[in-house]
Amino acid sequence: MAKNLAIARFFFYLCIMMNEKLIFVTNDDSYASKGFKAAIEVARHFGRVVAIAPDTVQSGKSQAITICDTLRLKHISSSEGVEIYSLNGTPVDCVKFAFDYFLKGQKIDLTISGVNHGPNSAANVLYSGTMGAAIESAFYGVPSIGLSNLDHNWDAEFDTCVEYGIRIAESVLSSDLPRPLCLNVNIPILPVEQIKGIKACRQTKGFWIDNILERTDPMGGKYYWLTGGFNNAEPDAEDSDEWALKNGYVAVVPVQVDLTAYDQLNILSKTLK
Amino acid sequence: MAKNLAIARFFFYLCIMMNEKLIFVTNDDSYASKGFKAAIEVARHFGRVVAIAPDTVQSGKSQAITICDTLRLKHISSSEGVEIYSLNGTPVDCVKFAFDYFLKGQKIDLTISGVNHGPNSAANVLYSGTMGAAIESAFYGVPSIGLSNLDHNWDAEFDTCVEYGIRIAESVLSSDLPRPLCLNVNIPILPVEQIKGIKACRQTKGFWIDNILERTDPMGGKYYWLTGGFNNAEPDAEDSDEWALKNGYVAVVPVQVDLTAYDQLNILSKTLK
Repeated sequence: MAKNLAIARFFFYLCIMMNEKLIFVTNDDSYASKGFKAAIEVARHFGRVVAIAPDTVQSGKSQAITICDTLRLKHISSSEGVEIYSLNGTPVDCVKFAFDYFLKGQKIDLTISGVNHGPNSAANVLYSGTMGAAIESAFYGVPSIGLSNLDHNWDAEFDTCVEYGIRIAESVLSSDLPRPLCLNVNIPILPVEQIKGIKACRQTKGFWIDNILERTDPMGGKYYWLTGGFNNAEPDAEDSDEWALKNGYVAVVPVQVDLTAYDQLNILSKTLK
Repeated sequence: MAKNLAIARFFFYLCIMMNEKLIFVTNDDSYASKGFKAAIEVARHFGRVVAIAPDTVQSGKSQAITICDTLRLKHISSSEGVEIYSLNGTPVDCVKFAFDYFLKGQKIDLTISGVNHGPNSAANVLYSGTMGAAIESAFYGVPSIGLSNLDHNWDAEFDTCVEYGIRIAESVLSSDLPRPLCLNVNIPILPVEQIKGIKACRQTKGFWIDNILERTDPMGGKYYWLTGGFNNAEPDAEDSDEWALKNGYVAVVPVQVDLTAYDQLNILSKTLK
């Protein structure tokens, strides 16, 4: 079985070398993050890499775009097959800037966004800048993988993320999965050999309960910090991403870009006058 | 028919007076916008109003939250039944601050977000700060209406928005529409008497084509502006919100907060190894 896999991989990379892919990489933790380097490591397996990431941390920026301000690009480094830039905008700005300007006219085969420092499972998908960029890419018809490490730490280990990022990117590039395709991939804090497998899941139902911290500044003025935690409304649901992560699986949720609640259309048509 | 409607409205407001509602108002164009005043006008019909809006324009902020910075609240004004505040954060920050701190423990009956200066139809729902706040409210179980005027101008007319905002809020408050409920309401630039009616629609398929403008600063450095336009992939689809708006209807799209692409789950389970 392992031999078959090795042979399959050999032919897969042979095909890639003969028909080199263009992989776009971005994230929301900035170009300086360890997770960004891990995402580039994943992307390098498949061909040429162009990476444009925010110049500062853009966590929680969702699908925000910069309308009222200007953007500036900075070249960070170039080495064989890998070009890295920073942009003073949001993750979605990076996608738009790359797809409609910097790489305009070139066929982009895949976007890898991340690897995020911290989970983007369940409702986090709505706030995440990493997933905002992944959703944006899918909008352009370019399949995307948002990768998130459950470990928040700036010096987190990314070996498991790289290993599974490569596996999932292989599946996306070598199969006829439907389009638009945007995968929200979360990876438990476990060494590779302890991962039980990859599980396709749905977004866990639940919501954030925010804890607004009130503080007083040295001048006597009040200010606040937004903190909180996710309240899982269905901890025992085996088809949810939170369950998969708690049970040692890499959780993959396919994300849609059409927000219409189709099941409510009929009743709305009857109710609204 | 008009008489019956008048009688129905009379009893509706009688019920409200006997059981006063609490309406939360926010937006993304700031507390100083004309659209914000229009949203408060809608909300005042139904009971007590608490309005907290960003202190600066937050267009395109999607569902962004403030993680790495602090928030400050400022009292703007209080008059009979209407309290207005500003917050130096995003529209979603305003919802979280209100629901988990400022109004904590109080039953909020409805959120009105807007009235936005400019459309949030089709794919705009993903980038819109107005709709970000509306989605956030629905997450808390509080039904929400995001109102958007197709007119971008700062001095736009809001009479039609107020009239239809009230009608739709009446429907939401007096019916048993399913929960979570988040309505994306867009209103054409037409006087009330020329509106053909309210139409429940789905999100139009299509995407933004961005036009990145390159400029040179006085020091010779390059900078960029993100501009563009929406490319409607289905201009003749009569069940889409763009079609409804072009044909003189107020368009109402029910928005969901679960982003799972359920139709892709099966094939993903088979493909990912």
